[in-house]
Amino acid sequence: MRLAALLPILDWGRRYDRQTLSSDLVAAVVVTIMLVPQSLAYALLAGLPAEVGLYASIAPLLAYALFGTSRTLAVGPVAVIALMTATAAGSVAAPGTAAYREAALALALLSGLMLLAMGVLRLGFLANLLSHPVISGFISASGLLIATSQLRHLFGLGGGGDTLPAMLGALLAGLGATHLPTLGVGLSSLAFLVWARRGLKPLLGRLGLAPRASELAARGGPALAVVGAIAAVEAFGLDARGVPLVGAVPAGLPPLRLPPLDPQLWGRLAVPAFLIALVGFVESVSVAQTLAARRRQRIVPDQELIGLGASNLAAAVSGGMPVTGGFARSVVNFDAGAETPAAGAFTAAGILLAALFLAPLLASLPVATLAATIIVAVLSIIDTRAPLRLWRYSRRDFAAMAITILVTLLVGVEPGILAGVAASLVLHLWRSAAPHAAIVGRVPGTEHFRNVERHEVITFPHLLTVRVDESLTYLNARWLEEFLLEQVAARPALRHVVLMCSAVNAIDASALESLEAINHRLADAGIRLHLSEVKGPVMDRLKRSHLLDTLSGRVFLSQHAAFAALAADPDGMAAPPPDPWGPRGLI
Amino acid sequence: MRLAALLPILDWGRRYDRQTLSSDLVAAVVVTIMLVPQSLAYALLAGLPAEVGLYASIAPLLAYALFGTSRTLAVGPVAVIALMTATAAGSVAAPGTAAYREAALALALLSGLMLLAMGVLRLGFLANLLSHPVISGFISASGLLIATSQLRHLFGLGGGGDTLPAMLGALLAGLGATHLPTLGVGLSSLAFLVWARRGLKPLLGRLGLAPRASELAARGGPALAVVGAIAAVEAFGLDARGVPLVGAVPAGLPPLRLPPLDPQLWGRLAVPAFLIALVGFVESVSVAQTLAARRRQRIVPDQELIGLGASNLAAAVSGGMPVTGGFARSVVNFDAGAETPAAGAFTAAGILLAALFLAPLLASLPVATLAATIIVAVLSIIDTRAPLRLWRYSRRDFAAMAITILVTLLVGVEPGILAGVAASLVLHLWRSAAPHAAIVGRVPGTEHFRNVERHEVITFPHLLTVRVDESLTYLNARWLEEFLLEQVAARPALRHVVLMCSAVNAIDASALESLEAINHRLADAGIRLHLSEVKGPVMDRLKRSHLLDTLSGRVFLSQHAAFAALAADPDGMAAPPPDPWGPRGLI
Repeated sequence: MRLAALLPILDWGRRYDRQTLSSDLVAAVVVTIMLVPQSLAYALLAGLPAEVGLYASIAPLLAYALFGTSRTLAVGPVAVIALMTATAAGSVAAPGTAAYREAALALALLSGLMLLAMGVLRLGFLANLLSHPVISGFISASGLLIATSQLRHLFGLGGGGDTLPAMLGALLAGLGATHLPTLGVGLSSLAFLVWARRGLKPLLGRLGLAPRASELAARGGPALAVVGAIAAVEAFGLDARGVPLVGAVPAGLPPLRLPPLDPQLWGRLAVPAFLIALVGFVESVSVAQTLAARRRQRIVPDQELIGLGASNLAAAVSGGMPVTGGFARSVVNFDAGAETPAAGAFTAAGILLAALFLAPLLASLPVATLAATIIVAVLSIIDTRAPLRLWRYSRRDFAAMAITILVTLLVGVEPGILAGVAASLVLHLWRSAAPHAAIVGRVPGTEHFRNVERHEVITFPHLLTVRVDESLTYLNARWLEEFLLEQVAARPALRHVVLMCSAVNAIDASALESLEAINHRLADAGIRLHLSEVKGPVMDRLKRSHLLDTLSGRVFLSQHAAFAALAADPDGMAAPPPDPWGPRGLI
Repeated sequence: MRLAALLPILDWGRRYDRQTLSSDLVAAVVVTIMLVPQSLAYALLAGLPAEVGLYASIAPLLAYALFGTSRTLAVGPVAVIALMTATAAGSVAAPGTAAYREAALALALLSGLMLLAMGVLRLGFLANLLSHPVISGFISASGLLIATSQLRHLFGLGGGGDTLPAMLGALLAGLGATHLPTLGVGLSSLAFLVWARRGLKPLLGRLGLAPRASELAARGGPALAVVGAIAAVEAFGLDARGVPLVGAVPAGLPPLRLPPLDPQLWGRLAVPAFLIALVGFVESVSVAQTLAARRRQRIVPDQELIGLGASNLAAAVSGGMPVTGGFARSVVNFDAGAETPAAGAFTAAGILLAALFLAPLLASLPVATLAATIIVAVLSIIDTRAPLRLWRYSRRDFAAMAITILVTLLVGVEPGILAGVAASLVLHLWRSAAPHAAIVGRVPGTEHFRNVERHEVITFPHLLTVRVDESLTYLNARWLEEFLLEQVAARPALRHVVLMCSAVNAIDASALESLEAINHRLADAGIRLHLSEVKGPVMDRLKRSHLLDTLSGRVFLSQHAAFAALAADPDGMAAPPPDPWGPRGLI
């Protein structure tokens, strides 16, 4: 059983039959045709040679097929991860150098190891750090950065830049040097791809293809664009006219060798590798869950960490780049009828064939065509309506997204995601720091207790009942002290305070310490502290502390019992405890 | 009113009378006598000239008297902050140099500005980052580091070190070079101070002093030790025997001048200054709250940020060092009868007199005596029972404390507190990532719904009700998706899922997104999602989202209504929504 959990292939492999094989093979052919141009394009985006994209779509798919839990996820190079790879590798080496390529391998290795470690140590919850507004804002901003970064290839210009203003500045400054033949190729490719997205499927339908088949065949748009562009280069001698081409792509197997084991390089790439691992994991799991739910299948997120970790390690030892589960290709895989991860393995075989036999043909592929496929692909990940939707729903979540987008566009991708994580945490702390609490009284003729501000309820000047609608943790322990002491300071006749704990699911050590301090301080002021409606697990834990020994008041099972007993005791108060100062503080 | 909130002196100053004056004056005399040796000692601990400690006990007290909200808090140099100052200043300059002194001023300036900014921007909740186990572990570990660091002065040795192993190593290595006359002075001072803590008060009582007076007079132990040590140095010519002395302390007013405005220095000191601000604020507020509660007074934490910020700025422009509210001195101030912050101003005047007239007499004070006062003072802040208490109450909180203590002792004070903050956050995320949830059913013959695992309740195979005992936020949004999909995957007959929201106090945008995804995925699988018992404020917010428009099921006011309606509908399911894939993901 344990082995089966680690190697899901042992489960689905046993029931593999001819029908499944045929479904998986069809899906693999469709995905391969879609993946070849995408792999080349995302390698270009990452600043790496085109073949790296192909290599990253072979071994990682096999590794995921062995260890992954999604039946239909297709892993490989994806746009946002390629951008993050370019940024991180660019921080330690110049694009085009061997050191840059080594850096990409080190990133795959490190993020693979981190994903594996998170899987083994059950640390998948760290992915929670990326709240939805942050990941959504980050992906939209990255899409915008990616699209902008490709414009220069469309115009046949050099230059670059890491931020939106830098890219736009370089683009505007160089616009005069636009290479018109390149622009022609780029715009034609772009126009064809945009049309293929909308018009290819209906056209194929009119030509007599079944709806599902035309849907799938329309996914071959980028492959058609690549073939057409190569043909145009050959036909019109665009090479001689200076249109930048992909150039010689070495044909052959992925180079199997150890990635760089340089501790200093690892140190410099650790943070970007962690961010690549987190972003890749969050998006991949979201895609895998969406697909699995449609067939009432399940994925196991902790095992997904293992699967994606293995994929990245496989990329690292086979000349690839960081990979994760891609949305578009997984949906195509699913729609084309893939039933098991074997479809991924067959896709890997397809890409391998492409690397062996198609590579020489790609030499004449214009870079501008790849740039156009990138632009068309990433424009769909920019969610322009999300900010407004978020603004309406929650200003705080909007703020987290706005910070992420602005920092990503204006400073860079790593600062962007880090700023988003920090903003989410700070906003969460802010919210947790002052939870909702109500002063309650008894609804006449009932045993119900309601907010005094919303209901006509019975209260007494010597008795205050506070209901806190939140677990008591270190995030709000200080607030609890301040809130209670403020309430007490305003009520000179007060003799009893009841903390109604019906919504308190946990009390951590900081909150316990605050309760002890509140108990002491109230006792100093001649007031007893009582608890009511403490939940079972919370009470079990409190019994292991000193709070109940030193509590100046009692613990009541129900708020009604507390109210009944204390309403009748308007003066009850013993002497304060002997020594309220324990040794503590900074002296 | 607004001005009065910013300047609490406008409130208490109006009611100031002769009786209050006399109380405050008595308290100021007692605190001054206690504070002179402490100020010198903590300057020594911070690696600064002795007079800096005096200067830091003059202007900051006046600033706090103007802006602070505690009636009895006594600010000035304190042990842990002095240690943090030494570490931070030591990272940019060598002790004894002018640059080192400048660094201490810059730290006071920066932490003052940060405290002010936090006060103005209402960011006091950031102090929540320091959970109780972390601050308690940090203070104990700092106390141990401080006591160990002073042993070398006791033995008359050089050397130093920033970590416990380094200090102990240097001490053991140098033990052969112990300077016996210094050790004699040090051990005598230590013995006297330890005795004074326990024996001076009863002795004064037997000599006829009233209990309260002997209590207060016993606080003069360190001052007596200082006087005795100076006398011994003069009497036995210890100077000539090589006992290290404080040396010439310039008499005069604190030097008023701008602190260094060097952006590069500020950059290097920003993180330590922030930690100094946070630790100082947390401890000061805790002391102030404890004291205020005893007299049913209130402090205003946001205004305390202003008060402490002003104190540190005052220290920065008057040749001081970072300051905060001290525990021991504030308790003495309180016990001696201080009624208003004027007592602090009078104390400042007392220290000023000391700086003007006593300074020349301090030249013969042995460093070993100051080291002894530091050791005796900090030993009481080491809480040896806290780890065991915490281990019993909560393993997670214990882990946060243990990490803080170990990193502080073995790596350093700044890494220690940062590791503690990170550990608390990670443990909190871990806990929040998987909140308590129960599958509930109806208790027969009632309208109550209880956990199926603990009660005999009515359920149906086509109807699943899940109660989540936590607000739904980005920290557990992913868990919610996984938990619900897992439950659904195990129940083939399922047609309705009800999410019972009685304990859900908030739904943030990430959780909303998860609910929308769950709704879509369940719809894909032919299952309707319903909500029940949604609280009013949560419902108001949901109405501003698209969830309710696309929800496949209904929103029921009560779980009972949901159960009644859905139990009778075992097959009810409409077609899945038209296009479950929106454009999203990494492509």
